[in-house]
Amino acid sequence: MVILLGASGYVGNAFQQLFQSKGVDYQSVARSDVNYYDRSALLGLIRETKATFLVNTAGYTGKPNVDACELDKAETLLGNAVLPGIIREVCEDEGLSWGHVSSGCIYSGRREDGAGFKEDDTPNFSFRTNHCSFYSGTKALGEEVLEGAENCYIWRLRIPFDHVDSPRNYLSKLLNYRRLLEAENSISQLEEFVAACFTTWEKSVEPGIYNVTNTGSVTTRQVADLIKEHLCPDRSFDFFDSEDEFMAVAAKTPRSNCVMDNSKLLSAGILMSDVEEAIISSLRKWEWA
Amino acid sequence: MVILLGASGYVGNAFQQLFQSKGVDYQSVARSDVNYYDRSALLGLIRETKATFLVNTAGYTGKPNVDACELDKAETLLGNAVLPGIIREVCEDEGLSWGHVSSGCIYSGRREDGAGFKEDDTPNFSFRTNHCSFYSGTKALGEEVLEGAENCYIWRLRIPFDHVDSPRNYLSKLLNYRRLLEAENSISQLEEFVAACFTTWEKSVEPGIYNVTNTGSVTTRQVADLIKEHLCPDRSFDFFDSEDEFMAVAAKTPRSNCVMDNSKLLSAGILMSDVEEAIISSLRKWEWA
Repeated sequence: MVILLGASGYVGNAFQQLFQSKGVDYQSVARSDVNYYDRSALLGLIRETKATFLVNTAGYTGKPNVDACELDKAETLLGNAVLPGIIREVCEDEGLSWGHVSSGCIYSGRREDGAGFKEDDTPNFSFRTNHCSFYSGTKALGEEVLEGAENCYIWRLRIPFDHVDSPRNYLSKLLNYRRLLEAENSISQLEEFVAACFTTWEKSVEPGIYNVTNTGSVTTRQVADLIKEHLCPDRSFDFFDSEDEFMAVAAKTPRSNCVMDNSKLLSAGILMSDVEEAIISSLRKWEWA
Repeated sequence: MVILLGASGYVGNAFQQLFQSKGVDYQSVARSDVNYYDRSALLGLIRETKATFLVNTAGYTGKPNVDACELDKAETLLGNAVLPGIIREVCEDEGLSWGHVSSGCIYSGRREDGAGFKEDDTPNFSFRTNHCSFYSGTKALGEEVLEGAENCYIWRLRIPFDHVDSPRNYLSKLLNYRRLLEAENSISQLEEFVAACFTTWEKSVEPGIYNVTNTGSVTTRQVADLIKEHLCPDRSFDFFDSEDEFMAVAAKTPRSNCVMDNSKLLSAGILMSDVEEAIISSLRKWEWA
């Protein structure tokens, strides 16, 4: 039995669909069903269900975006930094393997040598560097809290998207925002993301951190061009003149834009498609809301 | 009715004694009685008791010292950074004044101009400066979480001591440690601390941050000399050769040593004795455990 925490979210929902399509025996748990922030409640759940694996997609991302986290710092810290530590403690006590959905948003830009960030690169968009959103700060703290955790997969997601129009879908966001910020990013096709995450456990690859992003990176303009080419030929996209203008006009807190290196995942034999291919594939089977 | 959270701790206990000696109508609440980490439980408590003020002394300090916080990061974050945010939310919703015991341990050394740190100086021993213990990092985050809080006193305590021998008492620590680290600090006589904190509310001084330390600063050697002069004439104290030796031999995480400026508190008409006078006073009525 696989336990899925935070099943109602965008990522949690994708894990559910994966489990259903694979016929995985799983139980999805909402915080209102079992308060998994409470050690004994979580322990009871694990024992009662005879869990063999646990997937944590719970956390606090802010709605409609990370600006909201600046207004609810306690809840952001609780969901993204404290909860992983509670789950770690209980899972280590029970000897249970588990995976945690972390984020690539703890980085900004590229490595100094021009390459994408690897799993063991120190976050440069965190409280420790004093340059981050509160959200990113708490995600980086969450990874600190999990340092040295046993039998724990830390899956770094980065700007999820899929073929279903929704407020959390990166492609939908580009379609709905009035103006866009030009930036270069690695991004994660959601179905590929959850499949790759689960495979790390199924294939018993070495526990630890994995950047689970599509291979390569794209700029916002490139994604906009792909949308025009494959979905909305007549659509025009308007861009902010600069990040300064974006910050002044549209955002309360800085955004992470970064390039990730997924070669550790690929070396473990887990495939991720190239980023452009993944975007085109989602656009070709696009379902409007 | 004054609500006191965390009454079983060293600081909480001192507030209890203050309230008893002053005849203040209060209710001390342990987490095992009412889970005040839960918004609705805390709200219920405030409403049922018709609270007029709330004092939060709860938090996670690590036992026997802050090194323990490095091993329980989730609980340290929860107690020191998340809990203040939960209390803030509930108290703001209810329009209730309250006070939070923060710490001067978010600073190191002196200000660049050689003066003690004032309330509005940016912490320099925090996650943001990437030089701190995990404990200090969470205390500084706790102050971030309380930024802009309404009707909230943030009382910064610094190395508490009193006349009763106990493991949390700074003077007892100096008496019990095999070797000492020479450093300069502002410190807080505990009875004076709680009396000054409560007076900020009684006198309705402007809410906000207050450094609640005795006036001035002392070095560890000066305190050791005062102990020899006023309590243990035959006692000899052994010191580490350097902070590097201390870190290598006795500590897992760096300690905050800092000088604080309490003039904002004094200007509000709230008295704190000079630090040497406060130490001598505690030593003269010393009660061995």
